[in-house]
Order: sequence, then structure tokens, then C-alpha cells
Amino acid sequence: MSLSFAKRLEVVKPSVTLAMNARAAELRSKGADVFAFGVGEPDFEPPAFVLEAARKAVDKGVSKYTAVTGIAALKEAVCERTRKVRGWSPKPNQVVVTVGAKHALFNLALALYEPGDEVIIPAPYWVSYPEQVKMFGAEPVTVDTTEASGFKMTPEAFDKALSPKTKAVILCTPSNPTGSAYSESELSALLNVWKKSNSWLIVDEIYADLVYDGFVHASVAKLAQDQIDRIVIVDGVSKTYAMTGWRIGWCIAPAPLAKVLDVVQGQSTTNATAIAQHASVAALTGPQEEVERMRSAFEKRRNVMVESLRSLPGVSCRMPEGAFYAFADCRSLYGIPYKGKPIANDEDVAFFMLDEAHVAAVPGGAFGAPGYVRFSYATSEERIRGGIASIRAAIEKAKRG
Amino acid sequence: MSLSFAKRLEVVKPSVTLAMNARAAELRSKGADVFAFGVGEPDFEPPAFVLEAARKAVDKGVSKYTAVTGIAALKEAVCERTRKVRGWSPKPNQVVVTVGAKHALFNLALALYEPGDEVIIPAPYWVSYPEQVKMFGAEPVTVDTTEASGFKMTPEAFDKALSPKTKAVILCTPSNPTGSAYSESELSALLNVWKKSNSWLIVDEIYADLVYDGFVHASVAKLAQDQIDRIVIVDGVSKTYAMTGWRIGWCIAPAPLAKVLDVVQGQSTTNATAIAQHASVAALTGPQEEVERMRSAFEKRRNVMVESLRSLPGVSCRMPEGAFYAFADCRSLYGIPYKGKPIANDEDVAFFMLDEAHVAAVPGGAFGAPGYVRFSYATSEERIRGGIASIRAAIEKAKRG
Repeated sequence: MSLSFAKRLEVVKPSVTLAMNARAAELRSKGADVFAFGVGEPDFEPPAFVLEAARKAVDKGVSKYTAVTGIAALKEAVCERTRKVRGWSPKPNQVVVTVGAKHALFNLALALYEPGDEVIIPAPYWVSYPEQVKMFGAEPVTVDTTEASGFKMTPEAFDKALSPKTKAVILCTPSNPTGSAYSESELSALLNVWKKSNSWLIVDEIYADLVYDGFVHASVAKLAQDQIDRIVIVDGVSKTYAMTGWRIGWCIAPAPLAKVLDVVQGQSTTNATAIAQHASVAALTGPQEEVERMRSAFEKRRNVMVESLRSLPGVSCRMPEGAFYAFADCRSLYGIPYKGKPIANDEDVAFFMLDEAHVAAVPGGAFGAPGYVRFSYATSEERIRGGIASIRAAIEKAKRG
Repeated sequence: MSLSFAKRLEVVKPSVTLAMNARAAELRSKGADVFAFGVGEPDFEPPAFVLEAARKAVDKGVSKYTAVTGIAALKEAVCERTRKVRGWSPKPNQVVVTVGAKHALFNLALALYEPGDEVIIPAPYWVSYPEQVKMFGAEPVTVDTTEASGFKMTPEAFDKALSPKTKAVILCTPSNPTGSAYSESELSALLNVWKKSNSWLIVDEIYADLVYDGFVHASVAKLAQDQIDRIVIVDGVSKTYAMTGWRIGWCIAPAPLAKVLDVVQGQSTTNATAIAQHASVAALTGPQEEVERMRSAFEKRRNVMVESLRSLPGVSCRMPEGAFYAFADCRSLYGIPYKGKPIANDEDVAFFMLDEAHVAAVPGGAFGAPGYVRFSYATSEERIRGGIASIRAAIEKAKRG
């Protein structure tokens, strides 16, 4: 009947991380002290000068439309920062400013994918990649990785997954949910495989500034300048500058694709909020000491989170190179009694942790990696220790029965 | 080949008003004093207390994600204002806050339309309606109206356009581009036709607060409460509060549809920018004197614009009930020499005005109404008089040859 919703959407799942966040908020509103390891959001505030820039922008006037793809100052700032930090130089007409990095990926899906297309996504993957592919009737082709290979796609597995139908490949480095980041040589090996294909390469680099132990972020855009006319880099201010709520992301695309994205965005959202664009210019062009301070805090928290998780009975956890997630193998907790039944999967584990330990974390199945649970460590060391202690206590209590 | 863009997009046109705006900006950057009758954007600033609320929100902290569908305070403010001004009472779980009203319409298109669906759109129409329908493979079915019928769809023409394939009907009242607004009895007559169908009714009421000569805005939601489970109202702060650049709109939808829109938005943009949501709460709940001051200024400007247009040789223009557009029949200007050829259509008229009179206005063909030109009067009376005088001079000069 005509009142139905689009059939396309029947296969699209809601964002699990957002749902888990909502459930934690609900528990919190009832007075529970919930450990927030669920949401991918820094607990820091943006640098003070960014907030000051926002106030100044209000005074100067930010109430009018801007160009659909963003104000010139922001596009130039993106180019300049990309040159400085990533070592390659896009042009402003390649930059399309969006309502967060998720929106950049969504607009790419809208511009590129259609029924018959395949899009290669290594698993574990960020929850929105396959859903955005399905929204436009295309097929996500997931490539499983193993903890032993660092949750990284091997050139062999990649080669097998490529087909003449491959429209695009989506990489995320450093990765949400695993924190794994590809080294330059690992990326080069993947590029050698990809170059033989006739597909777009989309790389989500939103966590590129959050890498640890001296790891150096490698960008395919720098490594494959000869293929730059089919490479798209996605980035934004949300994670690096603790500006999730401001909703400013962007993609850097070949100019003809950027033009199509301009049309798509001109018929859907128009420009991203003007004041947020101005605040983002300040973030990108101002002093970067705060970024280093936050990065260094995340590094310490990572160590605490991974060590604490490893101290839980049977739980293993790879030390991630970047982002702010620990991705732990929690299958050792299967069998523990929970609500009168033994825990049987990662979703049970996550809900057991939420209900019995007031720890919000996201089950790995949502990321295409059943058996695992994603713990965000974008919270204080004290909270991390407290949350893991609470899980330990809940496990012991449940085992005692 | 796989590097192509989605075929779906081949039929999608860029927004002409945005393109015209860009062209005017280009001329302006070269030093030209361009009369801005092209863009649908108030020249006012938002009320001072709205800007103050934005500054305060920065101080209190607005850098985190909000709920995908918006903060509770904004959804409640939308409901309260809808009750007060429109005379019906939606619930907060029906409100989905979006990145401007255009985004609400886009998300509805994504949630509802698919190949095989028809969507009825009276012409002249706002440029994005048919493009959004086409983006998802559905077919826009335009229903022509006449200036004699006030650019309003008649019940007879509506009845003829309905089919079992009709998925939705999109009305805009007051209308962009014509400024025409349906009276309560005109809407009731359309509702009688629509009730027999099995389709959604989407009404864009973004200009509802800008009506003149004592006209009273009528909302289908109030008139057809017995059909409210298939009615969607689209609105926002952009036009009423001069907040286009803040990008806050919303739709009020039946709860099951609002839930689907939540999923769609959770996988595409997440929440609209938090600070803009807070500023919008202030706009909706604060004193409304500024709205009346702006409305009253628009009314005077409308009179000046329509009278001035009518003073041009052969040009006719209907007196619109609302919005801030005059939609003038410019066919009398056909034949005037321009760039060595006689003007042959409304696009020629618009480019003649831009090049020869430095007046930016949008050709009616873009709105499905060839022969007409849309003049925005969201600018001062002095500028309106100046722009029309400039057109008159250009016509006289061209005629002299």
C-alpha cells in the first residue's frame, strides 16, 4: 500500500552505538551511575579559542547561507592542514564540507552507489558503512579480518573480494571499532591490489590525529598520488578537537566528484551550520597544543583500558595503534548466568555489563565481529578503572550465582 | 564503468536559486552592485536574544552529540508553538529536527519514495521537490496551475493527477516561488479529494508566519485531524527568524514515520548542530515582536515590489498572500534584443536582467513555470526601487538598440 516506507530501508539497521547511548542515558536519568564506554565521543571540551571564535562569529554575523560546500576560509584551512599533517596538497575545489564525517560518507553513498554495485568493507567495520551502502540498494561485501592480523585486511583477502562489480572500497584507519591503523607498507600492499581494479577508494581518516606509541599515520592519498582521481579522504573536527556536537566534517574528492556532491548537498542540506564552520576554521588554524594534550591523555587511557580489560578472566584485547577504542574478545564470558540463562553471545555480554555493572559498551556483532565488545576509552582513567572493576564484580557475583 | 556516478543522479538538476546566487556573488566580487532578488533569504538579523542564547549555549557547553532527532527543549518548543500559532498539538515524539527544512523534505524522500512511486507536486513548485523525488527513482507528477487561479491547484486537477501509484502529495503554503497561500476553504476542498486516496500529504509551511493583508495561515494538520496519521508538516526557523545559515528545520510526522526518520538520520547526519538547536529554542520561546516587525517590513516591501514590477512595460504580477517572493509574468519582454538575439524565454530574461541591470532574479522555468521570473523582496524598499529602475533603464536601452 502507498502509505508504506521505502522497501530499500527494510534492510537498514539503526545505529547500534546511538541506541546503546540512548539506553545508557535512560538508565542515567533513573539515577544510575553509568560508565560511558559506549559512545565514540571525547569527554574533553574543544580548545577555549575555538569557543571564543564561535562567540566572535556570532558578533560578526553568521546567520546567512554560505556556499553549499563550505566557506572559503574553511576549505583553505582543510587544504593547508592536509598539506602540513598528511603531506599532500588538495585544492579547495576538492573539499566538500558536510554535517559531520558521517554525512560525507552518506553523500558519497548517494552519489556513487546503486543496485548492482558492490562495496568492499573490511570487518570489523564502523556501523554506518554497510547501512549506507544498503540504503541505496548496493551490496556491502565484507572482508573478515582476524585479531592475529591486527584486524587488518590482507592483500590476499582484498584481492579475492574485488570483482568487476566493485564500485568502491571503504577503509578506516585508524579504525573504529578496533583502533587498528594501517602502516605505510600495509597500505602500499593494499594499494597494489586496488590499482588493478576500477573502483573508488574511500578512506575514513577521522581518527588520524589520535595515534599512539609514535605510530605515524599513513594516508593513501599521499601514497597513491598517481591514482588521486579515484581516491576520497573523509575527515572532520569531531574527534580531534572534541567537537562532535558541532557537526563539521568534509571529504576531499577529485573535482568532478566534488561537483556532484555539491549538487547532492544543494538538494538535501545546503551548507553545514555557518557558526560551526567558523569555529572549525579556528580549530584547524589555531595552536595545536590542545590536540597533543588530548592525544597524550588518550594514550594513557588506552593503556589503562587495555590492561584492565586483560585482567578480566579470559578476556583478551589487542593494543590498538589509534582512535579511542579497545576491541576485546569476550567469548570467555559465555556461559556466565544472566537473567536465568547462560550468556551466549556478545550482545548478551553487553547487556549483562549494562544491567549488572552499569557499563555501556557496544557488542561486536554490530561491527561485524561477533564475540567481541567495543570499549571507548574517551573518559577518565578513574572511570575506566571503576567501570572494569564493576564488570569484575558483576562477573564474580554472577558466577557465585 | 565502476568509476561512474549513480545513474539515478543523471536526471537530478542542481538548485538553480543557489546557482543564481553564486553567479551574483561572482559579479559582486568583481565590484558590481548586484540587486539581490535571487536568493530566498531575509536580509534581517535574528532577534538579539537569539544570538545571546547562542553565546550562552557556548558557555554552558554545546560540543557533544544530542539525540539524533533533537534536544527535548527544542522538540517541546516546536510542539508548544505549533499549538499556539497553528492551533493543533503534536507530541515531541513526532518532531524530527533536521539540518534545515530542505533536509526534512530530503529525509522524507529517502524514507518514502522508490521506483514506481508517483509524487504529486503542483507547479510552480520549489526547485528541490521534484529533484528529491527523482533522486530516489520515483516520478514527480506536476500539476500545472494558472495565474488566474492564484497559482493554486484546483480540486479537479488534483483529482485527475491522483493514481494508485501516488505515494505522496507535496503542498507549499505560502508558496515558494509564487507567494500564493491556500485559504482554509481551498485546503478543505483539496483535502476532500486527497482523503479518498491512500497517500501521504506533506505540507511545507516554512513561510506560514509571513502572511499579509490579514491573511490567516491555514494548516491541513488542523483541518484533517482524522487523517493525521498520514500528514507531515515541514517547518523551521530559517525564514521566520532570519536564521537561514543556522540550518534548523523539522518535520512533524506520525510517530511510526518519525521513528524511520530517526533511523535514516542516525545513519546520515546524526543531530543538527547543537548550538543552532539551542539558538532555535530561544527563537521559538522568546518574545515574538521581532517576527511581527520583520513580517510588517516584508508586507511593505511586497507592495513596493509588486507595484514596481507592474510598472514595467507589459509585465504583470499577482499580489501574493505570503512568503517574500513576487512571481511576475515577463513574456512581454520577449523580443527585446540581448547579446545580438531577441530574448526568447524566461532564462534569457533573467540573464538579461543580471548582465544588463545587475538584478539577480530566478527564471520561472526552474519552478516549472516558463515565462515567469521570481523576484525575492527580502531586501530594502530602496533596493527594490533601485533594482526595478535599473531593469527599466536596461529595457529602454536595449529597445533603443
